[in-house]
Amino acid sequence: MRSWNVAKGHGTENDFVIVLDRHGMMNPTQEDVRHLCDRRTGVGGDGLLRVTKASAIPEWDGDGHIWFMDYRNADGSVSEMCGNGVRVFAKYLVEEGLAHGASIEVGTRAGLRVVTQERDGQLRVDMGRVLVDSETTRVELNGERFEATPADVGNPHAVCFVEAVAPLDLTRAPEFSGERFPEGVNVEFVEFVAPGHVRMRVFERGVGETRSCGTGTVAVAAAAQARWGGDQWRVDVPGGTLHIELHPGADSGRIDTAYMTGPAVVQLRGEVQVSGDD
Amino acid sequence: MRSWNVAKGHGTENDFVIVLDRHGMMNPTQEDVRHLCDRRTGVGGDGLLRVTKASAIPEWDGDGHIWFMDYRNADGSVSEMCGNGVRVFAKYLVEEGLAHGASIEVGTRAGLRVVTQERDGQLRVDMGRVLVDSETTRVELNGERFEATPADVGNPHAVCFVEAVAPLDLTRAPEFSGERFPEGVNVEFVEFVAPGHVRMRVFERGVGETRSCGTGTVAVAAAAQARWGGDQWRVDVPGGTLHIELHPGADSGRIDTAYMTGPAVVQLRGEVQVSGDD
Repeated sequence: MRSWNVAKGHGTENDFVIVLDRHGMMNPTQEDVRHLCDRRTGVGGDGLLRVTKASAIPEWDGDGHIWFMDYRNADGSVSEMCGNGVRVFAKYLVEEGLAHGASIEVGTRAGLRVVTQERDGQLRVDMGRVLVDSETTRVELNGERFEATPADVGNPHAVCFVEAVAPLDLTRAPEFSGERFPEGVNVEFVEFVAPGHVRMRVFERGVGETRSCGTGTVAVAAAAQARWGGDQWRVDVPGGTLHIELHPGADSGRIDTAYMTGPAVVQLRGEVQVSGDD
Repeated sequence: MRSWNVAKGHGTENDFVIVLDRHGMMNPTQEDVRHLCDRRTGVGGDGLLRVTKASAIPEWDGDGHIWFMDYRNADGSVSEMCGNGVRVFAKYLVEEGLAHGASIEVGTRAGLRVVTQERDGQLRVDMGRVLVDSETTRVELNGERFEATPADVGNPHAVCFVEAVAPLDLTRAPEFSGERFPEGVNVEFVEFVAPGHVRMRVFERGVGETRSCGTGTVAVAAAAQARWGGDQWRVDVPGGTLHIELHPGADSGRIDTAYMTGPAVVQLRGEVQVSGDD
């Protein structure tokens, strides 16, 4: 029986187990990650954030002194980045006294991210480039057809504008063109609330409906801009509210940088047993 | 912002937040319970076990020095008893040094329960009386009809024997006679594995399919006995294995005492913030 010091946090109800591994000594196995993320037998989370120094990551070629977010999905697989995760990661660093100041550098597998603390306690993070496809495609949900705007935020999204998101039944997966999205796609359904304000629900590929999807809110803001203009969008997700700013690039349809601002909470700190005796 | 010392444990993956309230001073509100049991913003659990002295419970008229399991459902409502919960409760008492010896008395709203520690670390608990109804009823699942044996374990159950439980789709609620079960019913689907050994899945009323249901395994063992005889049943649930012993009463169809033996784990101990700033 081993025990680990852990924390648990969430950003708009996208939740994470956090493990501090200062010296890069306790690389968790896939099985460890699955156990820690198990909501009944472990701590519970959508993923695990290992907090370690960038120097402990062989593929990192930048400054080795900064903190690195080693993100794992709940199934134990490695992932590059997570917009809600990086805010929770930064909040943890600040609360543990591991980082100071308004601007916090975080290494990720998608490169360096700078997280800034706003005066109201919210956190703002650079989500990188977005590419919106002007050619729409079709998505089908429970037999109903929707026109979808494809958007790439490092991962693929299909954004469908609808009259109202509340009545939708997202218990079954939406269907889409396998030719257009050979690796699957996250599907967002979006309702216009007011200029610069939309409400969305999301079906994440391989997961199902979730309370929040960081890259999804960026895809939605970019698709909303392509439709109505406006470079600042408030996006309501089931788990809370995120604000997206879009900074245009030189090419049409290209957004060079999207910034996401939202809350982060670290609600639990404790010790967990990793090998149960059940 | 308040913070609480908490633990989290599970019995066959029926999981609980545990709060130690030695002096009966910190009675959690419904809102506190809902927050603590929230799997994303709190700790996460099917319910909350408040550990307090029986003397702190006004309606308790027995020995005030024993520990009392104040059980709350995840929605904040009060519940009488929980077979998986009482094993986790006893395990916690032992691990925290709050109880000693092979036999632990626990006060519950359903009366006194004696939990015994087996040599293999499993825990055995008296689940009280069971009444099996010899008149079967009908349950319908996704348009298919099943013959069901009603059983009462303090709460109502309908036990359906099937060829195989794995293929069943339990995403939709089974339908039953509202006249026969005016307060709803927990529906168990049971597959025969070997003499004295069955496998089950359960749809709990108001919840959906769960990993385990303590009273459900007792209902299933009693219905299996009515069908095949045998007073010892191993019952496999999705979250693990429980063993049920049935001790007959004077009347036919009446079981005076059912004992359940199974595992209990307390995997997490920590501190949680109760009022978040999100």
